[in-house]
Amino acid sequence: MSQIKALFLNASLKNSEEQSNTEALWKEVGEIYDQEGIAHESVRLADYYIPYGIDKDLGDGDEFPQILEKLKGADIVIIGTPVWSGEKSSIATKALERIYGSASETNEKGQSVFYNKVAGAVITGNEDGAKNAAQSILYRMSHMGFVIPPNVDAYWVGEAGPGPSYIEANGIENDFTKSHVEMLAYNTMHLAKIFKEQPIPAVGNTQ
Amino acid sequence: MSQIKALFLNASLKNSEEQSNTEALWKEVGEIYDQEGIAHESVRLADYYIPYGIDKDLGDGDEFPQILEKLKGADIVIIGTPVWSGEKSSIATKALERIYGSASETNEKGQSVFYNKVAGAVITGNEDGAKNAAQSILYRMSHMGFVIPPNVDAYWVGEAGPGPSYIEANGIENDFTKSHVEMLAYNTMHLAKIFKEQPIPAVGNTQ
Amino acid sequence: MSQIKALFLNASLKNSEEQSNTEALWKEVGEIYDQEGIAHESVRLADYYIPYGIDKDLGDGDEFPQILEKLKGADIVIIGTPVWSGEKSSIATKALERIYGSASETNEKGQSVFYNKVAGAVITGNEDGAKNAAQSILYRMSHMGFVIPPNVDAYWVGEAGPGPSYIEANGIENDFTKSHVEMLAYNTMHLAKIFKEQPIPAVGNTQ
Amino acid sequence: MSQIKALFLNASLKNSEEQSNTEALWKEVGEIYDQEGIAHESVRLADYYIPYGIDKDLGDGDEFPQILEKLKGADIVIIGTPVWSGEKSSIATKALERIYGSASETNEKGQSVFYNKVAGAVITGNEDGAKNAAQSILYRMSHMGFVIPPNVDAYWVGEAGPGPSYIEANGIENDFTKSHVEMLAYNTMHLAKIFKEQPIPAVGNTQ
Repeated sequence: MSQIKALFLNASLKNSEEQSNTEALWKEVGEIYDQEGIAHESVRLADYYIPYGIDKDLGDGDEFPQILEKLKGADIVIIGTPVWSGEKSSIATKALERIYGSASETNEKGQSVFYNKVAGAVITGNEDGAKNAAQSILYRMSHMGFVIPPNVDAYWVGEAGPGPSYIEANGIENDFTKSHVEMLAYNTMHLAKIFKEQPIPAVGNTQ
Repeated sequence: MSQIKALFLNASLKNSEEQSNTEALWKEVGEIYDQEGIAHESVRLADYYIPYGIDKDLGDGDEFPQILEKLKGADIVIIGTPVWSGEKSSIATKALERIYGSASETNEKGQSVFYNKVAGAVITGNEDGAKNAAQSILYRMSHMGFVIPPNVDAYWVGEAGPGPSYIEANGIENDFTKSHVEMLAYNTMHLAKIFKEQPIPAVGNTQ
Repeated sequence: MSQIKALFLNASLKNSEEQSNTEALWKEVGEIYDQEGIAHESVRLADYYIPYGIDKDLGDGDEFPQILEKLKGADIVIIGTPVWSGEKSSIATKALERIYGSASETNEKGQSVFYNKVAGAVITGNEDGAKNAAQSILYRMSHMGFVIPPNVDAYWVGEAGPGPSYIEANGIENDFTKSHVEMLAYNTMHLAKIFKEQPIPAVGNTQ
Repeated sequence: MSQIKALFLNASLKNSEEQSNTEALWKEVGEIYDQEGIAHESVRLADYYIPYGIDKDLGDGDEFPQILEKLKGADIVIIGTPVWSGEKSSIATKALERIYGSASETNEKGQSVFYNKVAGAVITGNEDGAKNAAQSILYRMSHMGFVIPPNVDAYWVGEAGPGPSYIEANGIENDFTKSHVEMLAYNTMHLAKIFKEQPIPAVGNTQ
């Protein structure tokens, strides 16, 4: 079996010159992938020029096509987002719009190009909103062709109100977050392997 | 001006024989109402027989009509709910369905019977989901005729994962929660008084 | 391979003495299951006495334990709901609360008892709200251990505002709805078969 | 009384060189404002350089400060958005992030600078998602200091699945949409006038 590849799209509002709490939580997932021989790459979306629109290539220097190629080459796609006002970030929303604009591409069997890939979500915030962000991301990914394994919403948020973020709050010590990091990493890996061996038959689901 | 009356509908899954964290947070609001001379009543929805359906009276012992009378008599309506799986409770959902089934009733000017009343939300949970619950409740109340004052979502939730609830966690000490209790209490009161003096003109909004 | 079994939980607010639009859409799914040799059963939740609470058995005549046995015996679980005020029904919310209260049960390997099962959603409404209902249902099912296959949200809703429901509107003629019925039926079947042959390894996901 | 001013922020993904369905629905609101002597201005957000972040001025050519000045000068703020994948647009999400980053500014009484202003939402899409977009927008606006009048969610969406948009579908003929345009226009106007005469007392709600 060829190596399983995981792609992390970090929808932090900050580019990679600044520290991202969501990246820090993702690194916990990446450590498990390292142990298990899963290749992984993290893309900071704010580093790219990604214009607005519902199309896979909007021209004029649009860098989303590069990201689309990475998506097509990945077996596992994890969307990472901070929580603002109890929701996923605007960059996460834009990424989902651009993926949606690419979902009519098909694989060689006529299914959406995202079939046989699995998706998950990594979320951090000072407070409340992780499940709202997770449900939005995971539903849209499943609607575009990805499989959602069990328990692939790894998140940390603090108590109600302003407060320290994941890194400062030492969220890594939270047992619930730790167990969800583990389930996210292992279940995306398990299912990616299963669909590599046994792809979803192209019956009833071609475009 | 006649006395302002506030009604609290507590959508705890437990009836009043058991302690409700959401009730405990509501009491903080009630204390401010007491200081300000606002009458208030708390209704534990789980104590009533409220069948499912979209009608103001479903017959066969339906006790919602009693609650509808209380709603009509109130100037301020606060929905309280626990958070389960990041959402408002099923009893809160049912209450909104029944209020929706009553929204075609009109006042003497032909507006929805809920015009000139203001709404708010009080929410508690172990963890994540308060804003999701708040947005669902406040939007539906506004869609049925209530005015939503600023900052009327008073909530407490703990850090990600299982953990103590509001009472046990001493959530009352949370400054953010305290400030939102205050804004909820005062802004519902301020706006209820304003609409008592200056009702919304019946132009462009009659049924 | 033993026969695949599908369970449909219909969260209509009406019991089975009344016609359900959601049931009518489900029947389209059932026809495909019949052709493919998938056993299926529909449970009208409003016919059962299901009290409120977060536990698998609340005693006092609670009939949820019967439904839990059906859930454990099924390979595919589809939640069906009408849309009210742009959301899933209160009975759907209650069903998810009760399933959540049962998710700490484990299979013989120590995973949640819902592992290796797949979930989907069938939704009907006069208007707007199907995706909101779908995201809520599918996310919660994945959070409780189910796998979400691609494109398992089959729905019909009409144009904005009051209007005819699925049956009366002849929603069955809607091409989008038809294609999603097909993807729901086939993808739940395909994945249920895959997980029957290749269960998710009990590594990183036991409780 | 000085003239009431309404500001429309159109979060279309397209800039003003292209036709916007959401703008077309907004124009219906604007006609009523014209009749009633309400000044109004429409801002196409995609025409501006608005970087990502949670701050009122991100420097480097950030044009959001211009929009913030317009927000401060308005009595009524309407957010308009298309529906993509059942949600508000990424530009709407970004606008809410930037408004959130400005909500700690205060008026001369110490309340959020958005107090005594009212908000609403105008939404168009091919299909399903308007209420999800409306609840997200209206809740966040209320959480940042705006008052939400009754029935200020004016929207048009078509039947489930791909199909014509508002202009092409002649959504203007939809009675439900028409009545909500009217309620949005009149109720934002009524409440803006009320708060101009009777501002919300600065008791219990200063920062």
